[in-house]
Amino acid sequence: MNNIYTDLAVELCKNLPENDFSASGIECKNEFFGSLKTETVSITSPNGAKLLGKPMGTYITVSCGKIWLEHREKIKEKVFDFARLLRSVLPPFQKGSILVAGLGNESITADAIGPVAVKNLIVTRHLRNEKPQIFEELGLFELCAMTPGVLGQTGIESADMICSVAERVKPSLLIVIDALASRSLSRLVNTVQISDCGISPGSGIGNNRPSLSPEKLGIPILSIGVPTVVDAATLAADAISEFSDGETDGEAIREEWSKNGLNFFVTPKETDQVIRVLGAFIGHGINLAVNEDLSYEDMLSLAGG
Amino acid sequence: MNNIYTDLAVELCKNLPENDFSASGIECKNEFFGSLKTETVSITSPNGAKLLGKPMGTYITVSCGKIWLEHREKIKEKVFDFARLLRSVLPPFQKGSILVAGLGNESITADAIGPVAVKNLIVTRHLRNEKPQIFEELGLFELCAMTPGVLGQTGIESADMICSVAERVKPSLLIVIDALASRSLSRLVNTVQISDCGISPGSGIGNNRPSLSPEKLGIPILSIGVPTVVDAATLAADAISEFSDGETDGEAIREEWSKNGLNFFVTPKETDQVIRVLGAFIGHGINLAVNEDLSYEDMLSLAGG
Amino acid sequence: MNNIYTDLAVELCKNLPENDFSASGIECKNEFFGSLKTETVSITSPNGAKLLGKPMGTYITVSCGKIWLEHREKIKEKVFDFARLLRSVLPPFQKGSILVAGLGNESITADAIGPVAVKNLIVTRHLRNEKPQIFEELGLFELCAMTPGVLGQTGIESADMICSVAERVKPSLLIVIDALASRSLSRLVNTVQISDCGISPGSGIGNNRPSLSPEKLGIPILSIGVPTVVDAATLAADAISEFSDGETDGEAIREEWSKNGLNFFVTPKETDQVIRVLGAFIGHGINLAVNEDLSYEDMLSLAGG
Amino acid sequence: MNNIYTDLAVELCKNLPENDFSASGIECKNEFFGSLKTETVSITSPNGAKLLGKPMGTYITVSCGKIWLEHREKIKEKVFDFARLLRSVLPPFQKGSILVAGLGNESITADAIGPVAVKNLIVTRHLRNEKPQIFEELGLFELCAMTPGVLGQTGIESADMICSVAERVKPSLLIVIDALASRSLSRLVNTVQISDCGISPGSGIGNNRPSLSPEKLGIPILSIGVPTVVDAATLAADAISEFSDGETDGEAIREEWSKNGLNFFVTPKETDQVIRVLGAFIGHGINLAVNEDLSYEDMLSLAGG
Repeated sequence: MNNIYTDLAVELCKNLPENDFSASGIECKNEFFGSLKTETVSITSPNGAKLLGKPMGTYITVSCGKIWLEHREKIKEKVFDFARLLRSVLPPFQKGSILVAGLGNESITADAIGPVAVKNLIVTRHLRNEKPQIFEELGLFELCAMTPGVLGQTGIESADMICSVAERVKPSLLIVIDALASRSLSRLVNTVQISDCGISPGSGIGNNRPSLSPEKLGIPILSIGVPTVVDAATLAADAISEFSDGETDGEAIREEWSKNGLNFFVTPKETDQVIRVLGAFIGHGINLAVNEDLSYEDMLSLAGG
Repeated sequence: MNNIYTDLAVELCKNLPENDFSASGIECKNEFFGSLKTETVSITSPNGAKLLGKPMGTYITVSCGKIWLEHREKIKEKVFDFARLLRSVLPPFQKGSILVAGLGNESITADAIGPVAVKNLIVTRHLRNEKPQIFEELGLFELCAMTPGVLGQTGIESADMICSVAERVKPSLLIVIDALASRSLSRLVNTVQISDCGISPGSGIGNNRPSLSPEKLGIPILSIGVPTVVDAATLAADAISEFSDGETDGEAIREEWSKNGLNFFVTPKETDQVIRVLGAFIGHGINLAVNEDLSYEDMLSLAGG
Repeated sequence: MNNIYTDLAVELCKNLPENDFSASGIECKNEFFGSLKTETVSITSPNGAKLLGKPMGTYITVSCGKIWLEHREKIKEKVFDFARLLRSVLPPFQKGSILVAGLGNESITADAIGPVAVKNLIVTRHLRNEKPQIFEELGLFELCAMTPGVLGQTGIESADMICSVAERVKPSLLIVIDALASRSLSRLVNTVQISDCGISPGSGIGNNRPSLSPEKLGIPILSIGVPTVVDAATLAADAISEFSDGETDGEAIREEWSKNGLNFFVTPKETDQVIRVLGAFIGHGINLAVNEDLSYEDMLSLAGG
Repeated sequence: MNNIYTDLAVELCKNLPENDFSASGIECKNEFFGSLKTETVSITSPNGAKLLGKPMGTYITVSCGKIWLEHREKIKEKVFDFARLLRSVLPPFQKGSILVAGLGNESITADAIGPVAVKNLIVTRHLRNEKPQIFEELGLFELCAMTPGVLGQTGIESADMICSVAERVKPSLLIVIDALASRSLSRLVNTVQISDCGISPGSGIGNNRPSLSPEKLGIPILSIGVPTVVDAATLAADAISEFSDGETDGEAIREEWSKNGLNFFVTPKETDQVIRVLGAFIGHGINLAVNEDLSYEDMLSLAGG
């Protein structure tokens, strides 16, 4: 299973034999949340965590559909449902502030979902001190945000950068937004994974980086991830098991291909537009989740982006 | 063969039975051109054109390697080789001017290679009238350029737009730069196809658009295409025949997938950086091809981008 | 008066002695058009044209205010008023199609208003042939668009490029969108000049380019211009006559400064955001002007950008 | 003097009566450093600091000329001179690492010089731990970088964000790059101010933000600032005293204008290109300053951007 590149818990489950589930404390359930379909994987025991290769906790994969092709009214409906869903899983945060971190490389479109989402937030923390009256008047929840960049461009782990800033800002909740790798095209850029387990940046594509965990930071973390790339070898391996009698694992293909210098993560052709719309979707969803009384039009006016 | 999505003549040849070649007037040969490997397909008879589904003429696929990862000195060497290669296939153009058209949608990175290349050209046509002395002094060949945009954004076929402008400018040669679809990852973003057959915009991905042919325009056309996307279903079909005993054609997978709303063209994750470097490579190659005496440093200073 | 850099007819009038007006057939009037203030200059005689240095015709300067700071509801109101205003001055165009040309250099923000506006249009011309049923159903007016680029990057006059395409497309009306120079900060980026006199690209900043005139093209032209730059020397000269007893003309300052290599056109610091919002404003205004029955929400969904 | 908006110490000096200098411990001297002219202001007493409204320390204004118009060979020469100049003023830093912070709003071109410069750095800190062999081999100095964003988009003071990260990274030197306001067009985008006094983000344009001082951080700070905007009212006031007999201070004009809602910082029209070139200039200068043995070509290959 290690040779399947995916960050989605729901896709890792597909690889397990059916009878492993009950034994190991992995629970799956499918539901609808208004206009959104959700697949929830709960890992409730260390054994389940080991089997899936992911920390214990809850992973909700939300199917949003191709929202970049939809009418504004439909998007509005889905944003409200997404905000309600976020609110239902958010830990209590009514004291203090929220820090949102948009991970990823802004100059690689497929990796830019975090920074793009952050640009669509209603940032308010500075108003409390600078303009307390306006802050009161707006009645907005206190929120701040950062885009730590990526190791190759900063020389500093984004987890380290977030920890440093969190120590100073002392938020009551950290929300982290990141691009993920999915295994199949069917979840690519039309699902969002929400989890309460922290994040290991780049874990889905074979990196091993310092992780951000609630234990480490001492505050709850909500991770929001969007699958924006598929490993080409995993895609090929899955096509083989789906469409032929043969069976070849991704690692064999990856090895064969890498002999020829091929190592591709693939992303949709229209990824520029997709990321712009999805980033707004997530940012707006967070805005409405933390500011429950805000109208959609006012939210759009107050949001950046 | 119709269900294989590729714009590369060399990939279409792979599908033909060996003995079809000599009979049908399709000739293939591999050579080296300095640091660049070339695969040349010549279609010399109408029968060959029918077999390959492409107009008669010459198609040279140049392997450039991953130039976006290479050192500047290595890139410089390859640009000079590419310029020499272009010069060897350019029709006589020493009278009049050259018009270069960069096809594609500038706001979709995978489709932007044409517009990006155009930004790296040394455009001189306006200097002849405006500042004849400077024009003489620089000794540069007369070149003009356009980026016609795409049908969905202009409502005007890019072929129509190019024809209109060519009628007014009356160049002695048209160079067209476009993004292509390749069949396999091995040629994706590391090859360039050069051809003298004109162009059918979007032909590789199943569109059917008014074509630009030398006959129609009355002047020679040099097409420069870079494969920047792979059809996901074709990729899967090829993986099946390579790695399993089974055999499934791309169309079957595409049909199956499209039942589920999946229809993906894939592109490398780092496509932003790749296109920027490849666009400069092609623009600079054209600059050096038409201005033989220009030094590399002077070319960089005069080029836009 | 030649040494004042402005493209706005209303600013040129300020320089004329009062009694010149009636004599010369220059008429000025101020009105309100819903939420928008307008200043209309009509040049009705060759003498007036000579006095103002502009072709005979009507020039309406619309004051929009700082719409990039306004709430969405307010912007919506102003877009509708702007669309009504456009409709009131548009020549009859119910037969055939409209061609919109966005002039200027997309990669210089202060010059990009034309290309940005074009990105916000509802382009439909290609649907009539490609998908006649959809075209009927949508009931949209036939519109196509182009962004010809600038001479320094294409080597081709944008007027020539527009003429070539207009000859092929044969529209019944040409709309041209361009960045202008204003004389004073008070009109910078918060006014729009509408005129029926064609356009001389770059005329306001001292260039002398082939013009686009209704006579030359054989169809009416509507020019929409937004002042996005102010000549620094003109700004200084105006400040002197406003705030001191002295009197110095712009040319003297410009000459003095240019001895020291200073020659600046200035633009607001937040020009990136301003141009994005103003471009959408103009594009959306055109959309609503030519598609009278379209709701605002549907227009936003159909528009690009 | 408070109503003159400038961040350049050399411009503040122009306002002082001649005889104030010797008395107050403000020293000015002009020199040449290879191809670069420098104007150095040293504030050596608290009295001088009070007079100029700036902390005690050294401020060097480097005249680079319009490097965005120059040939690559000339730029190379100036980058080397700039690197030598930086080396001559850098405090001893041979132990530990350097942290570079690019201040400003990346999405407002005139404010983006800091983030753009950071993109052109050779970032190495992560290599020491990740790939110690490569790190040794390259022989590069340890450098890391961050772009903290702006208060309005993050809700967190950039000074706070830098302090947090510096506490964790523990660099031996902090370099801060920021956009400045100059008073006159003659220094706009063609000078760079280098200082050892820390930084008060936004001080030149009337903001009052938490400052970054060497005392506060416990390590030396080198500030590199580029004037990219001019306050329009200051520009007008200076024009009046230069070109007329009258005398009006900037504040009077600013007040008069602001009654009409006018409050402009102006920036050159081609600011997009200017900032791109200047950002590379500064980033490359730092690369060569801290990596003395690196060739220009190798530096370009290793640098991002």
